[in-house]
Amino acid sequence: MTRIVKKRSVKAGLPPGSLVYVGDKGAGKAKVTVVEYREGSVREASISELTECFPCSDASTVTWIDVTSVHQVELVAKLGECFGLHPLVVEDILNTDQRPKVEDFGEYLYIVFRAFSCNGGHCPMETEQISLILGQNFVISFQEKESTVFNEILERIRTGKGRTVKSGADYLAYSLLDTIVDNYFIVLEHLGERMEALEDALVANPAAKTLREIHLLKRDLISIRRSVWPLREVLNNLQREGSTLVTETTRVYLRDVYDHAIHAIDTLETFRDMISGMLDIYLSSASNRLNEVMKVLTIIATIFIPLTFIAGVYGMNFRYMPELKWRWGYPAVLLIMTVISAYMLYFFKKKKWF
Amino acid sequence: MTRIVKKRSVKAGLPPGSLVYVGDKGAGKAKVTVVEYREGSVREASISELTECFPCSDASTVTWIDVTSVHQVELVAKLGECFGLHPLVVEDILNTDQRPKVEDFGEYLYIVFRAFSCNGGHCPMETEQISLILGQNFVISFQEKESTVFNEILERIRTGKGRTVKSGADYLAYSLLDTIVDNYFIVLEHLGERMEALEDALVANPAAKTLREIHLLKRDLISIRRSVWPLREVLNNLQREGSTLVTETTRVYLRDVYDHAIHAIDTLETFRDMISGMLDIYLSSASNRLNEVMKVLTIIATIFIPLTFIAGVYGMNFRYMPELKWRWGYPAVLLIMTVISAYMLYFFKKKKWF
Amino acid sequence: MTRIVKKRSVKAGLPPGSLVYVGDKGAGKAKVTVVEYREGSVREASISELTECFPCSDASTVTWIDVTSVHQVELVAKLGECFGLHPLVVEDILNTDQRPKVEDFGEYLYIVFRAFSCNGGHCPMETEQISLILGQNFVISFQEKESTVFNEILERIRTGKGRTVKSGADYLAYSLLDTIVDNYFIVLEHLGERMEALEDALVANPAAKTLREIHLLKRDLISIRRSVWPLREVLNNLQREGSTLVTETTRVYLRDVYDHAIHAIDTLETFRDMISGMLDIYLSSASNRLNEVMKVLTIIATIFIPLTFIAGVYGMNFRYMPELKWRWGYPAVLLIMTVISAYMLYFFKKKKWF
Amino acid sequence: MTRIVKKRSVKAGLPPGSLVYVGDKGAGKAKVTVVEYREGSVREASISELTECFPCSDASTVTWIDVTSVHQVELVAKLGECFGLHPLVVEDILNTDQRPKVEDFGEYLYIVFRAFSCNGGHCPMETEQISLILGQNFVISFQEKESTVFNEILERIRTGKGRTVKSGADYLAYSLLDTIVDNYFIVLEHLGERMEALEDALVANPAAKTLREIHLLKRDLISIRRSVWPLREVLNNLQREGSTLVTETTRVYLRDVYDHAIHAIDTLETFRDMISGMLDIYLSSASNRLNEVMKVLTIIATIFIPLTFIAGVYGMNFRYMPELKWRWGYPAVLLIMTVISAYMLYFFKKKKWF
Amino acid sequence: MTRIVKKRSVKAGLPPGSLVYVGDKGAGKAKVTVVEYREGSVREASISELTECFPCSDASTVTWIDVTSVHQVELVAKLGECFGLHPLVVEDILNTDQRPKVEDFGEYLYIVFRAFSCNGGHCPMETEQISLILGQNFVISFQEKESTVFNEILERIRTGKGRTVKSGADYLAYSLLDTIVDNYFIVLEHLGERMEALEDALVANPAAKTLREIHLLKRDLISIRRSVWPLREVLNNLQREGSTLVTETTRVYLRDVYDHAIHAIDTLETFRDMISGMLDIYLSSASNRLNEVMKVLTIIATIFIPLTFIAGVYGMNFRYMPELKWRWGYPAVLLIMTVISAYMLYFFKKKKWF
Repeated sequence: MTRIVKKRSVKAGLPPGSLVYVGDKGAGKAKVTVVEYREGSVREASISELTECFPCSDASTVTWIDVTSVHQVELVAKLGECFGLHPLVVEDILNTDQRPKVEDFGEYLYIVFRAFSCNGGHCPMETEQISLILGQNFVISFQEKESTVFNEILERIRTGKGRTVKSGADYLAYSLLDTIVDNYFIVLEHLGERMEALEDALVANPAAKTLREIHLLKRDLISIRRSVWPLREVLNNLQREGSTLVTETTRVYLRDVYDHAIHAIDTLETFRDMISGMLDIYLSSASNRLNEVMKVLTIIATIFIPLTFIAGVYGMNFRYMPELKWRWGYPAVLLIMTVISAYMLYFFKKKKWF
Repeated sequence: MTRIVKKRSVKAGLPPGSLVYVGDKGAGKAKVTVVEYREGSVREASISELTECFPCSDASTVTWIDVTSVHQVELVAKLGECFGLHPLVVEDILNTDQRPKVEDFGEYLYIVFRAFSCNGGHCPMETEQISLILGQNFVISFQEKESTVFNEILERIRTGKGRTVKSGADYLAYSLLDTIVDNYFIVLEHLGERMEALEDALVANPAAKTLREIHLLKRDLISIRRSVWPLREVLNNLQREGSTLVTETTRVYLRDVYDHAIHAIDTLETFRDMISGMLDIYLSSASNRLNEVMKVLTIIATIFIPLTFIAGVYGMNFRYMPELKWRWGYPAVLLIMTVISAYMLYFFKKKKWF
Repeated sequence: MTRIVKKRSVKAGLPPGSLVYVGDKGAGKAKVTVVEYREGSVREASISELTECFPCSDASTVTWIDVTSVHQVELVAKLGECFGLHPLVVEDILNTDQRPKVEDFGEYLYIVFRAFSCNGGHCPMETEQISLILGQNFVISFQEKESTVFNEILERIRTGKGRTVKSGADYLAYSLLDTIVDNYFIVLEHLGERMEALEDALVANPAAKTLREIHLLKRDLISIRRSVWPLREVLNNLQREGSTLVTETTRVYLRDVYDHAIHAIDTLETFRDMISGMLDIYLSSASNRLNEVMKVLTIIATIFIPLTFIAGVYGMNFRYMPELKWRWGYPAVLLIMTVISAYMLYFFKKKKWF
Repeated sequence: MTRIVKKRSVKAGLPPGSLVYVGDKGAGKAKVTVVEYREGSVREASISELTECFPCSDASTVTWIDVTSVHQVELVAKLGECFGLHPLVVEDILNTDQRPKVEDFGEYLYIVFRAFSCNGGHCPMETEQISLILGQNFVISFQEKESTVFNEILERIRTGKGRTVKSGADYLAYSLLDTIVDNYFIVLEHLGERMEALEDALVANPAAKTLREIHLLKRDLISIRRSVWPLREVLNNLQREGSTLVTETTRVYLRDVYDHAIHAIDTLETFRDMISGMLDIYLSSASNRLNEVMKVLTIIATIFIPLTFIAGVYGMNFRYMPELKWRWGYPAVLLIMTVISAYMLYFFKKKKWF
Repeated sequence: MTRIVKKRSVKAGLPPGSLVYVGDKGAGKAKVTVVEYREGSVREASISELTECFPCSDASTVTWIDVTSVHQVELVAKLGECFGLHPLVVEDILNTDQRPKVEDFGEYLYIVFRAFSCNGGHCPMETEQISLILGQNFVISFQEKESTVFNEILERIRTGKGRTVKSGADYLAYSLLDTIVDNYFIVLEHLGERMEALEDALVANPAAKTLREIHLLKRDLISIRRSVWPLREVLNNLQREGSTLVTETTRVYLRDVYDHAIHAIDTLETFRDMISGMLDIYLSSASNRLNEVMKVLTIIATIFIPLTFIAGVYGMNFRYMPELKWRWGYPAVLLIMTVISAYMLYFFKKKKWF
């Protein structure tokens, strides 16, 4: 289960701009992949330590620096220094509990958002923070954990297919955002399947387990919602407002991702509505079952309690009970009992109890 | 039941602009109907394959290209090429899970929305995505499935009745939108009838089936709501913002469709309110019934349990029980029992239990 | 009970601007009352058929044409022609299921809204659509049914009292709107009285009938709400935006009606809050009553079941049961039973069950 | 209990501007207090009938006319005439069911709002409408009932303490508004105390009376809310928009009252949240109590019903029942019964039922 | 438990600007710490009484006056006089029940907000009002209680570390705000832990205590919410609007605190959602448990009541009961009883009752 609040308290009291990694410490080392490309030419390098800055001065190529596992504070600090990032930005990259946002620092844009992914068929919804720095001719992406989410874009650059290699850094940033939002739909699909399975379960046999499952589903929805709602604003800002780092052509594409994000939000809200409906059904079914149980008890008890009383009367040991000596006393009592039960059954039938 | 999330995962990882049909694959072939008209002259052709582009250059006529069943990817791609559509537009036409929207590409407007229809009396609420491309003197409509929803407009053009043949492409686009929104009201009427039937059922005999029906109705409402809310924005944009493709005269008509869409939304919200009221009533009735059941049980048990106890006491086999030998013991006990029951009945009467 | 969705399906498929009356067909003929007035002079005529147009050219007088029962399509169409109304306006007048709105066509304003009225003490909340056409020196009012709602204004004009005869057509339109909004308060008062009666009933004896009544009240509220909310927008537009047909003096009066509409909405929202509170109380009372019933059952059963068991034990027919032969066996058993019941009563007293 | 809707129906059908007092008719006569002051000089007069107008022409003094009990229609009408008030304003002053609002008539501002007060320790929340007319150098205040709410301001003017005598009419109007808003906090405090008492009662012993009290509290909250929400707008308008009647210095003070109004709204919303929480607790406690009752019943019944059955079996009178003649039959049966009860108790213990 | 409404009634009736301390009276004396610093030089003084004003005229240094325990009215009044504060500001500082706000008086900004803190591991959520006066080269902070919340900033100034000593008064104000908002996250973390503990308790054993705990948690959330929501507005104003007292460089930092505040609000809203979900689960579990209890009762009663009846029949003392004399009567009855119980068990099994 995702924790709602991360351990931010380790940072309390430190001056602003203090660099502390907030998050689960991964095991491995951080990995930095540097890809420099223009149409027709791709250079790729994978380095694990940063000793000196990159020039990135060649305006005709785009440089993509992909950093996985940001828990190595010095590496991120060094990169921030090389590219002249504001101390608060470096702090935010390490603080992997950010609300999605975009900030325009003139020279570069800082974009932060969350990725959700399903590893394997079971989709336990892993989540990580991803930070993007979009400069004139470079993109730096910081991933909280090692993941394969950007591999397909890397592949497209390597093979030179698609528009990416023909376009600038802004298109690369768009591609990364698009990939993340597309991943949202996989998670939503998975949630939709869980929800339909739950609905079937609700109708067939609403057990206490179902309630638990509804609750877990709701938590997952809340968790994604927290990430997608602000992302919508981020994409709207990118698409609309005038940073010179984003070209007009790319804006059309960003509008498309923005539409996808709205679509995701729509779906989330629908899920929310459906879950609240499911809870209503669950509660109603529970009360229906209780009703049924009580009816069975009431029918049985109401029929037999009076009969037992009659039997009890003639089980008394009074010396002077004339009925006991009657020849047809016993059959008469049995007849009376039958009549009473028949009337009771008729009464319940009329009340539509069964 | 409509699925909430379509299989978008087949598209994840593909570069933007990839053409993949997302939706149920229909059986038949795609059908393209081309109608070219101006006042007094109509030419109609039905083709099943696209080998070359249409000229559409004659500014005095309006050309309407109606494509049914968009699952033939190549045909749509070819059309897109002919009319110079943006790759993202062609992708969206094939991706039949769009949120209603309008996009202005200068040369043409791209409008996408959903149609709901009832086939036969039962109205199982079929739904399909419809895309419109509105150019200077042409309209292309893409329907997800084969349907008869636009037949009446075709007929009007053929017979030359109405304003359509006298007006431009924008009026044709308006007519198509108007037809779809009119269809919403048929579906709403149908839902309203189902709702009234449900209300009567609630009062007469609230069974578990009723709850299920409420739930299904709610799902249908959610499904339509997802389509009508964004359509309102679309129509507002068309009516207000300044695309030169829509003339002032047509804007007045679009304002009318916009009003209808708002009316539909109003009705949906009213339905929503009513359904939540119905759920409240259902739950209350269930608790009322439980109450009644429990009262019957309690009255019967409370009267007979003490009596049975008394009978039990005089059924004991103690050697020394003086009452057993009294001459009037038995009648006295019967009298006591009668008094106790009478008091109990009086008590329940006072409590207004029956 | 008012139907939520009117039969609009009869219109589906017809071209826009088709004139079909949507609503219950009244029995009588349509009636047209024409009043032409200026300060000091009133001319009144009541015609039942329209053979030629009115001139209305005399700028110094105001002409009020009041049409009751709009189900005579030709009459309305003819009037529309005479005054040069847009086909969509004529369509909307006949389509008596409109959402309140105001439309500015330059030459005239088209205002549509709903009136609610109580006939007799019982107030079954009749509702009808009223359309106003406000021109430079004329007002046309279309009422769905024959009603007396505008009689007092007519009387004021006839007697020449009040500001109406001294002012222009816009003041007449304001008077009509003001009358309608004043009528809302009568209906609200009536609803308020029903609500207070319900609240008293809730406290005294919450029966299943109360629930039904709450539900009906809620439906009536929803129905009025649908009409008053958009009317607020209409009045705001009239009061604020710059149609030249409404003078500055009249705007002050329209601001007053606008305030009344807001007041009505406020009251409606308060009613809504109160009704949801009443439902909570109803449900709580139901659960309280169930609790009480269960307590009675439990107290009786818990006291007598153990006693009955003891009696049962000494009713067994074992040959060797020493207690049965004891001299004080019977009194001892009675004593034990008394002690057990006393303890039980003490236990329930401590638990505050009675 | 405050009535939600006042008898407005007496006004329906009357022309706009008709002067009818809407409210409870007070017993006493209306009282008019006229205070004319400037720094260092105060003149005060108390008149009960208005025969001629006040001059108010001396620009160096401020005149405060305080009218209590507005049910004397002629007096208010006469005052309106003297000061040239718009007929709608005079109508609104008499119609003591107004929504708080401010209206700018150029020459004067018309401000209407509601006062709440607690007379004595019990605070039954009396409410009245107060209307203010703020002119260049005069303030007219109309109180619905006779009350002492403005006495302290009068005292301050008499003694010449504070800023009031040094400032203009706008500061006097501010002082009156400030007094009213301060009174809101007294009522809120009182509500807060009732709420805390209720919360303690909820924990100690949630009776049906508690539910009733929650409901009454909610009604009082709704009633205050209706008055405070629109007052916020009123104060915002006064503080922000540019009427020349309010000086810049006074605006700073009005901003302060505005902050207080927001604070009051905040507190109201918190109360609302808390009350809905209390209702949840109440319902949960009820269901908890029911649970407990049922457990007691179930434990007792489940233990003794099988035992009673066994006793019943050996109470049968069959001739051939071998067990009855066994020497240890009776002790054996008692042992079996003990074992069964022990197992049952163990079972309930395991289920944590007690 | 925090009180929702403080005793403001002591102020009612006093003229605006009256200086009355509203809050709990602390025991100790107020303490004033004066720190004057510029890069490289720090002067610190701790005084307990104010006899004369500070000059603060040296534009090159920043003066920070920190006042703890504001209940000494004269001291605050004296300070207000020295720095020329508006009477309403001094009143607000003493009135420790303010809604967070920022007010621009040109010469200085007045910022008021609430701090939450956890003393020790238990975090009973102490809260106090903090007022800031931000001038050109001075900051005055008023704390309601003595606390250590600003100690770390003092330490940073003393040691000359961080940006604080190098920047102006606005950066100091930012640092104080940042510290407070960081403290919010500690409280949120603590609430998050309580919430997770509660969730585990809900699943394991939902007792009445859990409900109480949910309620307390909700109250704490409401209390924080009241402070954080308006703080967001405050920070937005500071960061955006153009007071010349805040430099452009500091605005970037304020944007960061603003983001943190939004993050805190997001978390609070998530908590809210989760708590309402927990209440649903609690109620559902309660109804599940009731269901289970009733099933046990019904199974036992339904099986044994008919058997007891049969035993009762053969316990009757009629003289003529042929079955009693049959040789296999007793075994036959036992067999019948076994068959009945078996059928009952089968019936319950089929209904999935156990």
